Amino acid sequence: MVNVGIVGGTGYTGVELLRLLAKHEHVSLKVITSRSEAGTAVADMFPSLRHHIDLLFTDLDIGALKECDVVFFATPNGVAMQLAPELIKHGVRVIDLAADFRLKDPSAWHAWYGTPHACPELLDEAVYGLAEVNRCEIAAARVVANPGCYPTAVQLGLIPLLEAGLISSADLIADTKSGVSGAGRKENIGTLLCEASESLKAYSVSGHRHMPEIVQGLQGVCSSPVNLTFVPHLTPMIRGIHATIYATRLAGDAALYQDVFQQRYANEPFVDVLPAGAHPETRSVRGSNMCRIAVHLPQNGDKIVVLSVIDNLVKGAAGQAVQNMNIMLGIPEKTGLTDIALLP
Amino acid sequence: MVNVGIVGGTGYTGVELLRLLAKHEHVSLKVITSRSEAGTAVADMFPSLRHHIDLLFTDLDIGALKECDVVFFATPNGVAMQLAPELIKHGVRVIDLAADFRLKDPSAWHAWYGTPHACPELLDEAVYGLAEVNRCEIAAARVVANPGCYPTAVQLGLIPLLEAGLISSADLIADTKSGVSGAGRKENIGTLLCEASESLKAYSVSGHRHMPEIVQGLQGVCSSPVNLTFVPHLTPMIRGIHATIYATRLAGDAALYQDVFQQRYANEPFVDVLPAGAHPETRSVRGSNMCRIAVHLPQNGDKIVVLSVIDNLVKGAAGQAVQNMNIMLGIPEKTGLTDIALLP
Amino acid sequence: MVNVGIVGGTGYTGVELLRLLAKHEHVSLKVITSRSEAGTAVADMFPSLRHHIDLLFTDLDIGALKECDVVFFATPNGVAMQLAPELIKHGVRVIDLAADFRLKDPSAWHAWYGTPHACPELLDEAVYGLAEVNRCEIAAARVVANPGCYPTAVQLGLIPLLEAGLISSADLIADTKSGVSGAGRKENIGTLLCEASESLKAYSVSGHRHMPEIVQGLQGVCSSPVNLTFVPHLTPMIRGIHATIYATRLAGDAALYQDVFQQRYANEPFVDVLPAGAHPETRSVRGSNMCRIAVHLPQNGDKIVVLSVIDNLVKGAAGQAVQNMNIMLGIPEKTGLTDIALLP
Amino acid sequence: MVNVGIVGGTGYTGVELLRLLAKHEHVSLKVITSRSEAGTAVADMFPSLRHHIDLLFTDLDIGALKECDVVFFATPNGVAMQLAPELIKHGVRVIDLAADFRLKDPSAWHAWYGTPHACPELLDEAVYGLAEVNRCEIAAARVVANPGCYPTAVQLGLIPLLEAGLISSADLIADTKSGVSGAGRKENIGTLLCEASESLKAYSVSGHRHMPEIVQGLQGVCSSPVNLTFVPHLTPMIRGIHATIYATRLAGDAALYQDVFQQRYANEPFVDVLPAGAHPETRSVRGSNMCRIAVHLPQNGDKIVVLSVIDNLVKGAAGQAVQNMNIMLGIPEKTGLTDIALLP
Repeated sequence: MVNVGIVGGTGYTGVELLRLLAKHEHVSLKVITSRSEAGTAVADMFPSLRHHIDLLFTDLDIGALKECDVVFFATPNGVAMQLAPELIKHGVRVIDLAADFRLKDPSAWHAWYGTPHACPELLDEAVYGLAEVNRCEIAAARVVANPGCYPTAVQLGLIPLLEAGLISSADLIADTKSGVSGAGRKENIGTLLCEASESLKAYSVSGHRHMPEIVQGLQGVCSSPVNLTFVPHLTPMIRGIHATIYATRLAGDAALYQDVFQQRYANEPFVDVLPAGAHPETRSVRGSNMCRIAVHLPQNGDKIVVLSVIDNLVKGAAGQAVQNMNIMLGIPEKTGLTDIALLP
Repeated sequence: MVNVGIVGGTGYTGVELLRLLAKHEHVSLKVITSRSEAGTAVADMFPSLRHHIDLLFTDLDIGALKECDVVFFATPNGVAMQLAPELIKHGVRVIDLAADFRLKDPSAWHAWYGTPHACPELLDEAVYGLAEVNRCEIAAARVVANPGCYPTAVQLGLIPLLEAGLISSADLIADTKSGVSGAGRKENIGTLLCEASESLKAYSVSGHRHMPEIVQGLQGVCSSPVNLTFVPHLTPMIRGIHATIYATRLAGDAALYQDVFQQRYANEPFVDVLPAGAHPETRSVRGSNMCRIAVHLPQNGDKIVVLSVIDNLVKGAAGQAVQNMNIMLGIPEKTGLTDIALLP
Repeated sequence: MVNVGIVGGTGYTGVELLRLLAKHEHVSLKVITSRSEAGTAVADMFPSLRHHIDLLFTDLDIGALKECDVVFFATPNGVAMQLAPELIKHGVRVIDLAADFRLKDPSAWHAWYGTPHACPELLDEAVYGLAEVNRCEIAAARVVANPGCYPTAVQLGLIPLLEAGLISSADLIADTKSGVSGAGRKENIGTLLCEASESLKAYSVSGHRHMPEIVQGLQGVCSSPVNLTFVPHLTPMIRGIHATIYATRLAGDAALYQDVFQQRYANEPFVDVLPAGAHPETRSVRGSNMCRIAVHLPQNGDKIVVLSVIDNLVKGAAGQAVQNMNIMLGIPEKTGLTDIALLP
Repeated sequence: MVNVGIVGGTGYTGVELLRLLAKHEHVSLKVITSRSEAGTAVADMFPSLRHHIDLLFTDLDIGALKECDVVFFATPNGVAMQLAPELIKHGVRVIDLAADFRLKDPSAWHAWYGTPHACPELLDEAVYGLAEVNRCEIAAARVVANPGCYPTAVQLGLIPLLEAGLISSADLIADTKSGVSGAGRKENIGTLLCEASESLKAYSVSGHRHMPEIVQGLQGVCSSPVNLTFVPHLTPMIRGIHATIYATRLAGDAALYQDVFQQRYANEPFVDVLPAGAHPETRSVRGSNMCRIAVHLPQNGDKIVVLSVIDNLVKGAAGQAVQNMNIMLGIPEKTGLTDIALLP
């Protein structure tokens, strides 16, 4: 059994991690910390976990975390980078669900997240946890940066095309739509039901933190400069991300594009390429770790449109983190991640 | 392995059965019939099931069904009663998720469902599949009538009190609220998103088919006449039933009532009695087979209020059907039913 | 033109008041105060009001309020009672949308709201603003206590029956369902979209502040003691209250009960008695000041069931407040309140 | 008073027309036809209209329609073109809310709508009812083609830029999101609450009928060839369209683009250009005839992003139709269209 700790278990990625790990046959959950809820039973806060999780939230105790094999950080940005160096020194593997280790360039981190990075020396070593690109590196990693939700959906939709050189990297557009859980579980007026339901809006059009993360990832599989326009939208549902991606095609017909995706993901357990002409619904992945993708050439014009859907809390957060843990520890990759989407 | 057939797999209880059975370690799914979708791959209709279910929908073939160990009917009312006699003659166990075998009195069936019963001789033998009351009978049954969604939530909320003689049976009120999936997956204006979201209404106040079913069940555990006012409501969500039950207490204080529930359900795997003062949310059971119950004595007055929540498609339909199958076949009762509620 | 001030314009009742008053042909809006948003243009906070309201939010300035003919308090409980005495001394009419003047008994106020009342001497004079009961008194009032949302729906559903002596007052039950806007526009986890959508729960079953308010109102039209069990529920929609009311009938058949309601409300502009057998939907009053009511005798038993729906922000708050203002100032009662419900 | 007839009053654009016309001070509603509901009182079908509309639905009677000054067609595509020639021969002005008169080229109509056009000779005369472009022509028109919902939002977001020559017309992208009411009020599985809520999907990516309509409109204000990629999405809300429009800028900075929009729409009563940096929400126009627009230059790159929101049933259908009627009949353009958006 793997001894697991979670730092910051009261947010939506935290409770989703708990749901997945409570059923994971190789995991023994040892510690769940929460500054604000120390002493509260996890199941009192989340009644869905009654009879599944018996632990109490505790204050952060680095000693207790050091006795774990793996520690997940389901914390706000800036927490994991304070504690990761000490943990890995003691042989603990670290998976950060926040952004601390996603950007390789510490000055980019400073620019987009507003503070200097606390352990820039770890940025080179940390592995970006997109298994479809970095599976081998993840297996050997001490620190894994779990990808952001939008970056997961967008990169999985573009990587096959950029690797194959079939699109221009100079004018990529990702129009992305997210459920409200992406904004987290915190006191906030903008995400009240009365503010966010029965409405839809774009936000952060001038610049969103996931943009440099996506560009870095795409640039990694592409030799020409990547230029991306990224516009996120808040949509009236709890879970789900739908990325609608536009690119200019350089060669080939619809069958070629379809084939490139099917080949690229033929052996991927968590990427499902739909038949030509399909329109994936976000609910088809609700609660599951799957990413479903469809590719279109509207009117046989020069634009290719890729549709990519995930559950932002699963493949976009907690599920992908468990997938990374499985890879790091040599556990079969699908363990604990076989839930079928809840539909309807 | 148990060979399983499903008649009528295209509705919401059907797809939920498929979700549960696809992961059930003792089940081999052999046949799924659908008149309207014969020839279609199940996974083409429900992309959430891609890579989990490889079967095609087929036309009804009684021969294929006879080779199953168990056949589930996820059909409209009136179908199972046509086929059940032939199937049980060949040793097939039948679980009907519709209403055909719920009422013991064929004239009541005629009155509430509008047609004479096709096999009244089976009504006596058929077992009402509420495991918390009839576990032993279910184990031996050839035909199980899976309870309705409202009846499950209401009976589980009242049975301990009636058994203990702590409330009057003469003026029971069940004010029940259901998500829209209870109305099924069929072309219909009243359950369009634009009709049913952002609104709430009562329906069938003059009389709903679940009323005689509930009364029959309650009368079974109570010697004095049961009088029930039952008002269902349509509420703007997909899944979930919340029953708010009012009764006049005959004796005892809040602690006694709490204790009666805890004792009654101490060994039940799928009934969770919450601490005194709790208010169960329907989402705490979304996608799970659990019923959560809380009991209140408002203002220490003479009314007791019981709150009972289930997922109408799981404990109120497909999950309870799988629970009954497990009991019938001697499989550990929780097998395939350990999903934790999807929250948020 | 009537000069109007609003204290506390940033909540949901505040913005709804602004929507109604901006179009009211006899109203000149002079002052809108908000401690937290002083200096902000109203239309910057609520873009729906762009080109309709040019005012800025200002700090509370009692001098500016004294120059108004009417001041609405759309504030938390406990604010209006601090300022009302000074305002009415200067001839300003006061309409409080909070609870400060609803309960006649200052000790009841203390018990349910947790602080002593600041001006108990005004409680006797203040008029409960349910026009269907107190129209004449409202016309002459200096201080009007605008009824709560639940109390409006429940009282309008019970008053005709109690006045006519057709039901027992000893065992009334009001099972009420509210949209989330009833909880107000404030930073709060429980009313986030991700917490409150796709779920339903009861709350405050042990005792809710609207209970004594309703009992006081019903007792006013009934000589025998009123006993009420009141259970509110939070439902996944923005606007709307649905009250399902249960009472024991003392005499008469369905036609009599229907007739009593139609007679009682024949001349009421904002109460619509539906035909026998109807089931009002909350969306049929969305954005309108109407209360729609239907009455049922299920199975011709001894229970009468009344269904009563309002928009909690209109007839349950801002619309009723404008109705009271119209009555107080001799303006035709329907002025500014003729909006048709927005459906779908 | 203007005598008005409506053909096809039972869909969502029909009931919205009724809501708007019932309060329109210059309108006398004479006829509402519905094949399926002839004989039903309008207010029985739509209780929100009780006490506002006394008419019954009637069978189509061309004689009754000829006595109207204006006839609205809120019918499926293909109906208005059958009746319009006869009506205008008798001096009746026709406003078609469907697509019959939107495309100037009858072969394009045939290609996209699947049948030959019934009165191609009227296509040249018919005026495309986008007042912001064709106000004078509308005033003189006998037949007005009311624009589609997506085309309204997209054209209003692009026309100022194309007119000013500030963007390339060769690579326009419109990623559009619609509420479910755009799919109409008809028996259909795909728009059930249980199918369409808590989910999001693109549809018709290979080609949607609104694409040629938008291209035709844009080409009308632009001399170089227009190339548009148009992707609509179904989103889990009732009302609202959000168009996110991407174009390559040719010259100028953010201030210039902002200024172009403000100048272009300075005198338009129903287009509201938001301040730089704003993100319009669809709810800010719910129930109102306003289009709100914001313009962005993300990261000062070469892409301009325009955000354009409307209520698909108002500015995208019934409201725009009333606006066109006002213009045609010389009634002040805002008459009957001053409703403030319902928020929350």
